[in-house]
Amino acid sequence: MPDPKLLECFANPRPGRDFVIEHIAEEFTSVCPKTGHPDFGTVTLRFVPDGLCVELKSFKLYLQSFRNEGIFYEAVTNRIADDLEQAMEPKGMVVETNWKGRGGIRSVIRVSTGDASRLDM
Amino acid sequence: MPDPKLLECFANPRPGRDFVIEHIAEEFTSVCPKTGHPDFGTVTLRFVPDGLCVELKSFKLYLQSFRNEGIFYEAVTNRIADDLEQAMEPKGMVVETNWKGRGGIRSVIRVSTGDASRLDM
Amino acid sequence: MPDPKLLECFANPRPGRDFVIEHIAEEFTSVCPKTGHPDFGTVTLRFVPDGLCVELKSFKLYLQSFRNEGIFYEAVTNRIADDLEQAMEPKGMVVETNWKGRGGIRSVIRVSTGDASRLDM
Amino acid sequence: MPDPKLLECFANPRPGRDFVIEHIAEEFTSVCPKTGHPDFGTVTLRFVPDGLCVELKSFKLYLQSFRNEGIFYEAVTNRIADDLEQAMEPKGMVVETNWKGRGGIRSVIRVSTGDASRLDM
Amino acid sequence: MPDPKLLECFANPRPGRDFVIEHIAEEFTSVCPKTGHPDFGTVTLRFVPDGLCVELKSFKLYLQSFRNEGIFYEAVTNRIADDLEQAMEPKGMVVETNWKGRGGIRSVIRVSTGDASRLDM
Amino acid sequence: MPDPKLLECFANPRPGRDFVIEHIAEEFTSVCPKTGHPDFGTVTLRFVPDGLCVELKSFKLYLQSFRNEGIFYEAVTNRIADDLEQAMEPKGMVVETNWKGRGGIRSVIRVSTGDASRLDM
Amino acid sequence: MPDPKLLECFANPRPGRDFVIEHIAEEFTSVCPKTGHPDFGTVTLRFVPDGLCVELKSFKLYLQSFRNEGIFYEAVTNRIADDLEQAMEPKGMVVETNWKGRGGIRSVIRVSTGDASRLDM
Amino acid sequence: MPDPKLLECFANPRPGRDFVIEHIAEEFTSVCPKTGHPDFGTVTLRFVPDGLCVELKSFKLYLQSFRNEGIFYEAVTNRIADDLEQAMEPKGMVVETNWKGRGGIRSVIRVSTGDASRLDM
Amino acid sequence: MPDPKLLECFANPRPGRDFVIEHIAEEFTSVCPKTGHPDFGTVTLRFVPDGLCVELKSFKLYLQSFRNEGIFYEAVTNRIADDLEQAMEPKGMVVETNWKGRGGIRSVIRVSTGDASRLDM
Amino acid sequence: MPDPKLLECFANPRPGRDFVIEHIAEEFTSVCPKTGHPDFGTVTLRFVPDGLCVELKSFKLYLQSFRNEGIFYEAVTNRIADDLEQAMEPKGMVVETNWKGRGGIRSVIRVSTGDASRLDM
Repeated sequence: MPDPKLLECFANPRPGRDFVIEHIAEEFTSVCPKTGHPDFGTVTLRFVPDGLCVELKSFKLYLQSFRNEGIFYEAVTNRIADDLEQAMEPKGMVVETNWKGRGGIRSVIRVSTGDASRLDM
Repeated sequence: MPDPKLLECFANPRPGRDFVIEHIAEEFTSVCPKTGHPDFGTVTLRFVPDGLCVELKSFKLYLQSFRNEGIFYEAVTNRIADDLEQAMEPKGMVVETNWKGRGGIRSVIRVSTGDASRLDM
Repeated sequence: MPDPKLLECFANPRPGRDFVIEHIAEEFTSVCPKTGHPDFGTVTLRFVPDGLCVELKSFKLYLQSFRNEGIFYEAVTNRIADDLEQAMEPKGMVVETNWKGRGGIRSVIRVSTGDASRLDM
Repeated sequence: MPDPKLLECFANPRPGRDFVIEHIAEEFTSVCPKTGHPDFGTVTLRFVPDGLCVELKSFKLYLQSFRNEGIFYEAVTNRIADDLEQAMEPKGMVVETNWKGRGGIRSVIRVSTGDASRLDM
Repeated sequence: MPDPKLLECFANPRPGRDFVIEHIAEEFTSVCPKTGHPDFGTVTLRFVPDGLCVELKSFKLYLQSFRNEGIFYEAVTNRIADDLEQAMEPKGMVVETNWKGRGGIRSVIRVSTGDASRLDM
Repeated sequence: MPDPKLLECFANPRPGRDFVIEHIAEEFTSVCPKTGHPDFGTVTLRFVPDGLCVELKSFKLYLQSFRNEGIFYEAVTNRIADDLEQAMEPKGMVVETNWKGRGGIRSVIRVSTGDASRLDM
Repeated sequence: MPDPKLLECFANPRPGRDFVIEHIAEEFTSVCPKTGHPDFGTVTLRFVPDGLCVELKSFKLYLQSFRNEGIFYEAVTNRIADDLEQAMEPKGMVVETNWKGRGGIRSVIRVSTGDASRLDM
Repeated sequence: MPDPKLLECFANPRPGRDFVIEHIAEEFTSVCPKTGHPDFGTVTLRFVPDGLCVELKSFKLYLQSFRNEGIFYEAVTNRIADDLEQAMEPKGMVVETNWKGRGGIRSVIRVSTGDASRLDM
Repeated sequence: MPDPKLLECFANPRPGRDFVIEHIAEEFTSVCPKTGHPDFGTVTLRFVPDGLCVELKSFKLYLQSFRNEGIFYEAVTNRIADDLEQAMEPKGMVVETNWKGRGGIRSVIRVSTGDASRLDM
Repeated sequence: MPDPKLLECFANPRPGRDFVIEHIAEEFTSVCPKTGHPDFGTVTLRFVPDGLCVELKSFKLYLQSFRNEGIFYEAVTNRIADDLEQAMEPKGMVVETNWKGRGGIRSVIRVSTGDASRLDM
């Protein structure tokens, strides 16, 4: 079951400067609530930290907690964005999920929060 | 025969936030009305939902309904955009078709509706 | 309906020499007899002609005749090999079909007839 | 000899909406007027139609009419743009030629006419 | 739990001819028995059928049954080979697993049974 | 008109040793005798010289002499092999033509003469 | 131990003109302070020089001085940016580190200083 | 020795229209003045002509004149830009050099002159 | 210092069957004994186990023990082969190292022991 | 002027075992004796050493000595093979040169000496 309490943060090591952190997790899997078949995809997180940065291993464990969860593409993506928003309160953030094809169609969902223009640096 | 009634929608799971949904269907085929030969291409749909999102399997069946239809590249693309516009009324949308070559020339058609700048997030 | 009578041949223009002809058709489509959904794939034909060579446009029309046929991967491949064997009687031949994925699994079927070692030149 | 009368147009099927049409011809050839050696390249046409769209087969025949013409890269590109401008009067257009290398140098020429910013949709 | 009873077979549609069937499942996942972390990889099955062929959807469900099983790379690969050997008794077979990296090292395991030289056609 | 007299040779600079020479001409064009449309392809020549080697610029001019010739794929390939065989009498030779697609099908023709196994070094 | 004194500079050879210098070091390695395992990545430096440019060999030796240093991704990137800022005082600069995956997640960190918009030329 | 007098120009064939000319020379070599070892790279020139365009063969000979010159990356790039600026006086121009790696670091230098925004068409 | 005692083995889980295990370590680094500069490369180990298989994490730690060792390409490769030969006594084994370029030249070293033909399955 | 005396060797560090050494030099240049224009290519050396191995830096300097030499493709390749044969007397060797295109044709020359089958390990 997706568990936001798995997310741990550390203090931004360079709080006086805007910079971009990107984590790309290519081995995400959850379950389609309609068919029961597994879904596979890549989760990309990109953000400008304010006071806190998500710790990498805790982020991995958090993503693994979706492994047997029945949840749609759109819901996964918004949920990850909401949980990270609450944990880190970044200045700007994008969460993108990129799903392997099902029945000849593959999908991408992209959510941004805060001031996403800061990510263009 | 292309049938827009095949398109089913579900309620936007996160109505208070702009986000982007992209579906890429790499196995589209219709028929050239001039020569009778099949055309093959990729259909890409990208939109920011308002109240409704197109359901993925219904979108696949809708695209399959073009299989034996004689229709030109430009007409296919505008028709898909019109049918989705009517079904979902998204805040912004782009429909792009990317066709395999015929006689050494390959083509791309791109239609946008609504406020397409919202897709740049 | 697959129609072998569509296959036309022309006389081998260089009958005294072994040489290899390969045709790669990247836009093959048929229908899954179980689900009714379309299948998409590439058909590769490679042969050493004896007295006859299949004419390219007739081969294209023959492949198009599978468009609305419900037929399994293994049967398509063996059927194409049988029809070409009967039409051309080549010295050696390989027919390979390479199918786009369904449910996360993609497949390849390869059939050879006659003396396939002649194709290694 | 390049012949603009080969260009045929059909009425824009969706005149009330801006959309982009792109044709990519990867098998263009003309002749270098200086050395007499053939030049090979790709011609890309991208435009927003106003009242007329160039018909695909007529565009192919028009491009083939350059086959034995001695003409420089810059002149080919501007000539194609001028002929299409006159035939279609599009709202905006880009013509780009991308030439295979000669003596270790390859070249790209890009011409735009009308309001090219409409192509950014 | 891996369940070989999920494997269903159908009769070889062309028993009098040697031919090759290859299924490539790019979305395999199991669990490392040592660390509890998920492993991800691709399973490739290639065989010359004798009397029976594994049915594609049943093969998918069989592979999904490893999802929460703690099992090493070498054991997964040999187990899949053993289960398919018992279910189909093919004339020759190769099972290969190709694993995404862990700690900077990625691995491939390849098992063959029967007369694997028949797969070289 | 294809003109074998354009082929010039120079003496093998190292006659006492078997070695392989390969020339890859990616800009070949001729004309389809049936439709009158141009064909485009790559010609690859690979040989072990005996007493003579074809001179590179003369080979280019020879290939250019096919530019406006109406000739089928199989005939082009065998003709180039025959002309080079007569001009150089190599110990072993392969001529391969690789054609861009027409109507969704692309083709490869491969002819070998002499002792082609010498090319495997 | 990272040693900024290794950085040597030379006078900008064209001080009256804005231009961009980019150095891409694909063989960077440091050590994870948590696990003690080595990290591997690419460091990209892009800047518009003011009066000084970093000398290439000294930059290599400076990067090598991180080889056995235990330091996190975010700290490495900010430290390199700070040391170069102090050594060169460029008009604008971006430092990006691109790390190979650990546990299925790979990361990118990007820091900019000064007027980074000058880099867009 | 680099020799700007090698650069010859011809009159812009379409002076009333802004268009972009790009020449990419992938076989540039000069010598490192410090180590005496050869440097290899690609030179890209992109410009909007005013009254004059550089002639392609003279540009090749000009680049070859750097072959045995000891000169740094930054100086090569600015020198080429200065010589072309003086020869053609283009409306806008970018010269970019892209160097193969030395000691694990590869470099890119980019210089623009005039109104480079005209190149964005 | 390279330490073969770091290598741990586990019993072959399927001793009665020949199968191939391949581990690809893309993040190997050692030091050039001549220049003191770091070398970077990929180590590929491929073997048919007899009674023992090298444990993956111990193999990683063993490779890390070369990090600060001054040792030539040829010596690294033979040493890894010797240490694994002694630890596992495989039926056949290949060790290949693939080094990033130095001064424009990159190198590959390949050592095999035992009956390497067993690896061709 | 090509100078074989630049080639230095060191003693084979593992004389009792056949193994393969491969050096790939991607930045080779010489001059066409006919046109005076520079030629660019890649030189690949692959050998099984007997008593001696060519030292890498001396091999680089030897290749650089061809920089301003007018010499044909076939002669370069045979000359490098002869010089290395004399310097090292390897058990088996292949020298391959791979040249960038001239006039739309690119070439590969491959020479082997001694027992080249030993390189297949």
